[in-house]
Amino acid sequence: MKRTVFFISDRTGITAEMLGQSLLSQFDEVDFTKISLPFIDSEKKALDAKRKIDEAAAQGEKPIVFDTIVTPEIRKVIMESQGLVFDFFHTFIDPLEAALGIKSGFRVGKTHSYDSQGEYDSRIEAINFALNNDDGATTRHYDKAELILVGVSRCGKTPTSLYMAMQFGIQVANYPFTDEDMEDLKLPAMLKKYRHKLFGLTINAQRLHEIRTERRANSQYASLKQCQLEIREVEALMRKEKIPYISTTSKSIEEIATKIMLKSGLKRISF
Amino acid sequence: MKRTVFFISDRTGITAEMLGQSLLSQFDEVDFTKISLPFIDSEKKALDAKRKIDEAAAQGEKPIVFDTIVTPEIRKVIMESQGLVFDFFHTFIDPLEAALGIKSGFRVGKTHSYDSQGEYDSRIEAINFALNNDDGATTRHYDKAELILVGVSRCGKTPTSLYMAMQFGIQVANYPFTDEDMEDLKLPAMLKKYRHKLFGLTINAQRLHEIRTERRANSQYASLKQCQLEIREVEALMRKEKIPYISTTSKSIEEIATKIMLKSGLKRISF
Repeated sequence: MKRTVFFISDRTGITAEMLGQSLLSQFDEVDFTKISLPFIDSEKKALDAKRKIDEAAAQGEKPIVFDTIVTPEIRKVIMESQGLVFDFFHTFIDPLEAALGIKSGFRVGKTHSYDSQGEYDSRIEAINFALNNDDGATTRHYDKAELILVGVSRCGKTPTSLYMAMQFGIQVANYPFTDEDMEDLKLPAMLKKYRHKLFGLTINAQRLHEIRTERRANSQYASLKQCQLEIREVEALMRKEKIPYISTTSKSIEEIATKIMLKSGLKRISF
Repeated sequence: MKRTVFFISDRTGITAEMLGQSLLSQFDEVDFTKISLPFIDSEKKALDAKRKIDEAAAQGEKPIVFDTIVTPEIRKVIMESQGLVFDFFHTFIDPLEAALGIKSGFRVGKTHSYDSQGEYDSRIEAINFALNNDDGATTRHYDKAELILVGVSRCGKTPTSLYMAMQFGIQVANYPFTDEDMEDLKLPAMLKKYRHKLFGLTINAQRLHEIRTERRANSQYASLKQCQLEIREVEALMRKEKIPYISTTSKSIEEIATKIMLKSGLKRISF
């Protein structure tokens, strides 16, 4: 069973894609051909999109169209296509107007809450902070960190720091525990005074072994035994020092980051 | 005018937040208090969320609830709350079932298309590629790059590379044009053979001046005159060499990345 799906937006289309993917993922049996048409922000582009939908319709089943178009005139063109339109924005705007008792402005381009210059700058600053304070490169800016991720090498600290910076505007440093750090199950001295900012990541030893093997096959560093040892020691250290920690095994970067936000109680920018 | 808004999900809640923010942004007049409740994945947690909604309702106007809960039992608890529930998932699942002629599986945890291990690994690999090939650090992996972003220092290359890696799994290197590169409007030799992979970023000179001033106030590097000169030269070079380019001024990282995907025709992983 096959079906063509269009994701249409007057902006990036990321919202349409996320909700659309979530809906489509419930129908494993269907082989979906997905076409994203972002930045449909003029009637001319809308007519072009309509033509593509109609062409797909002419070749078989009616295509499914997920859209988040705000402007009524552009939406009208898409609604006149031969697709089955699921309108993620307008479906809710009427009941929301009713609930609030005021009219919507139908303003495009306000999808992201961080559109303002100040918020944009905060995110960029947070990304630079994550890059400059990655992998224990330096510890002298830890006073400015909102969070310091700790864990063994290759457990997911860097992608998580970057995602938290990008999505939530949080200044995150990360520090890799080494063998030396773990001797006697003691926190490195320079981390001690920032204990309230520490958050641990751990990972299944088998999975860590696979990840490290990708990088340095047959090394001691990648051996299952070494991975088991490091994970065991680090988890013991985190429990002893009462550092909150979560496992990254089988979690997406988004899930890891959101769980940390939830558990740490950190406030994101502009929410 | 004030109103409390809950974002509820059995996963990260990022989809509920994105669509919800887009809807709320149409009502500037209202001062929304936003509360995100992610990972509501048990009936106990749902009852807890319901209690929070009911408490907010008891204090004034009915709160607005945006949710993307998949599991019917958990959704039922939220529907019984005193909030005005806007159900982003279930609103569309029935008509989608009808359109496809099959029943949904109501499987939680399939929101992201990149949940599979292979896709996760590709994204992590792309992030590492972006980090290792950032800011012209090395050019010897350019054969493996899917895209090489070029532009002057601080025009947005690094955040864009990282976002494209994270969101789309694309291997992006970036190279900063320097004064030397721009002499005689010639492409550096090592970039020439990768011309088909090059994509330019430019920026308004005044904005660049502001960004550089944040980093090195009163330097020649940050002076408006220097910024104007560099931008003029780089744009001339990109036009001459027929390198496609876009301006990053007043655009979010998401918009820049999505525009590049659109213009370059690159295919993302698993879409």
